[in-house]
Amino acid sequence: MTFNQTLDAIRVYEAGKPIELVVREFGIEPKDIIKLASNENPFGCSPKVQEAVSAIVSKMALYPDDSMYKLKDGLAKRFGIDPHEVVIGAGSDQVIEFAVHAKTGPGKKILINSITFAMYEIYAHHVGAEVIRTASRAHDLDEFYALYLEHKPSIIFLCTPNNPTGDSADAADVKAFLSKIDRETLVIVDGAYMEYARYKDSAKALEPKELIEAYDNVLYLGTFSKAYGLGGMRVGYGIAQRDIITALYKLRPPFNITTLSLEAASAALEDEAFVQRCIAKNFEEMDRYEAFAEAHGIRAIESYTNFVTLCLKEGTSSTEVADALLRQGMIVRNLAGYGLNAIRVTVGKPEENDRFFALAAELV
Amino acid sequence: MTFNQTLDAIRVYEAGKPIELVVREFGIEPKDIIKLASNENPFGCSPKVQEAVSAIVSKMALYPDDSMYKLKDGLAKRFGIDPHEVVIGAGSDQVIEFAVHAKTGPGKKILINSITFAMYEIYAHHVGAEVIRTASRAHDLDEFYALYLEHKPSIIFLCTPNNPTGDSADAADVKAFLSKIDRETLVIVDGAYMEYARYKDSAKALEPKELIEAYDNVLYLGTFSKAYGLGGMRVGYGIAQRDIITALYKLRPPFNITTLSLEAASAALEDEAFVQRCIAKNFEEMDRYEAFAEAHGIRAIESYTNFVTLCLKEGTSSTEVADALLRQGMIVRNLAGYGLNAIRVTVGKPEENDRFFALAAELV
Repeated sequence: MTFNQTLDAIRVYEAGKPIELVVREFGIEPKDIIKLASNENPFGCSPKVQEAVSAIVSKMALYPDDSMYKLKDGLAKRFGIDPHEVVIGAGSDQVIEFAVHAKTGPGKKILINSITFAMYEIYAHHVGAEVIRTASRAHDLDEFYALYLEHKPSIIFLCTPNNPTGDSADAADVKAFLSKIDRETLVIVDGAYMEYARYKDSAKALEPKELIEAYDNVLYLGTFSKAYGLGGMRVGYGIAQRDIITALYKLRPPFNITTLSLEAASAALEDEAFVQRCIAKNFEEMDRYEAFAEAHGIRAIESYTNFVTLCLKEGTSSTEVADALLRQGMIVRNLAGYGLNAIRVTVGKPEENDRFFALAAELV
Repeated sequence: MTFNQTLDAIRVYEAGKPIELVVREFGIEPKDIIKLASNENPFGCSPKVQEAVSAIVSKMALYPDDSMYKLKDGLAKRFGIDPHEVVIGAGSDQVIEFAVHAKTGPGKKILINSITFAMYEIYAHHVGAEVIRTASRAHDLDEFYALYLEHKPSIIFLCTPNNPTGDSADAADVKAFLSKIDRETLVIVDGAYMEYARYKDSAKALEPKELIEAYDNVLYLGTFSKAYGLGGMRVGYGIAQRDIITALYKLRPPFNITTLSLEAASAALEDEAFVQRCIAKNFEEMDRYEAFAEAHGIRAIESYTNFVTLCLKEGTSSTEVADALLRQGMIVRNLAGYGLNAIRVTVGKPEENDRFFALAAELV
């Protein structure tokens, strides 16, 4: 059977290897595997969230409240916005999908950073849009602007802090950039790791309320998958002025969030103290990664996230290092596929990081 | 901001009202509300599924095993097929979405029954495909064939048993129809309620293994949302020959099923006895709905599902009946939007059905 030609260009996203796969492929016991590959919160989610979800497992038969009243209300209060300025996705991934389907397509272009979250390109290929990339590794907003003038993209993606590199643009620079972009171009500010950046350096913090009040063409993305410790529950959100949200809603399938996920995300918003403790611990441990890098003469890209990108020395292959770690039950992300001789390591619990340092010391 | 023109044609799916909404809109206490509107299993899911999910609430931070090894293996064993012949969606809805995006688009057509599951049309509008409908209320496969010859659709949807009417085509007729369709036309057999039909009348039962072995252009859909009692967890599946599955996989976003949903669905497959008990009870209660209809001189469409469509008398408005029930805390589905003066009622627990009969007796 033949399918639409757009499928030919689609490559499938390569996710961090789950523990289950390593168990099957390498025969390593689950207890001996450490996964520092998908930037999950190593401390999990708040115990209060676990309690809230446990309390409603008898309700799994019931479709979720598709208005998502409680969660949208919680996000609106959290960010000082109106619930109508929020759309909920199955991960912020799905909000990206809605936006790409709503705004771009064949004969149109999107503009992204040279190295950035892979799903922007994958979704653009779903709809047959052309992908324009910067040359610079970090978000160079002057280069973005020059390419914007040249290509007039329908969507510009700014991922800040950036995944998979961990660096972050300055908030002031982003706002100056937004002021120069015409209002027909949708600018998606992906703040999946913004909670970490906000904690580390207020100069990096972009506030959705401020962005959408000033720019009617901005869609801000956030997620419960990282700092909130709910990667497995698939809940993200988009924040924008109401006409953008209305358009995205047209593409939202009914019941796109599970009943338990809605409860988990709502409960997570009510234990901000847990999240802040996790973030504080993250940056304590991050210091140890920086010290490790310095001690071994390799470069750690300064990170505003819960992961660190270690750029390996010439002559050391990131593929070989990642494979050697994997055979010993340590899962990290090899960035060779992104054109970097680097590995991306999620900052784990202290004992997980100890193990990484011990294993990696022999390899880098 | 302007968006793609395809958005103009999209209407948003109207879901059954959730209990939370009725609480907010009518000020009725949750304990006084009975929802017979979304064809959820009134007996919930197996206690073993609840145990399995409760046991892993501490793992909500972890992304799911994106290979979905365990669930695909369970489905493969259940249906006697190969795991590579399965794709998992966030509800079978999402598999429909993959198929529509893979196979149709502007300038192409899909063929559906006059009254059928609303998402076929909605997804077709997402991609700008034209929707051709039969005139007959029940699936008339001769009419389908005539329209197939006339329009050469890229996709034909057969929903059997059909939602929202509950009737079912004969398996032999479906197979005779499939034998006449060219192999470039994708035929989607939506068996969301097949577990019920299989129990009631083996002449209505379509087996995915048999279908995909005989027809390389068939995609069979199943779900955990109905008989398996996991409507809130969003897990469905598509079964087809491998080249179709490979194409759909290209459009599958990573991590489209939550960690808890994967566990729930896998566990649900291991307690088939629970499901069969629920189905047996369903048809015992269905008899009472048929008796109610007969006693009140209204027509119940013979149902092979867990819901019943009651066609009201002339002069009685389904909108008024549904509204009057709603004000008394009884949620059913008004089918006026489908062009039927009928209500669709999920077969509930005995006491829920008692309440329906008591309230409806005054209204129909």
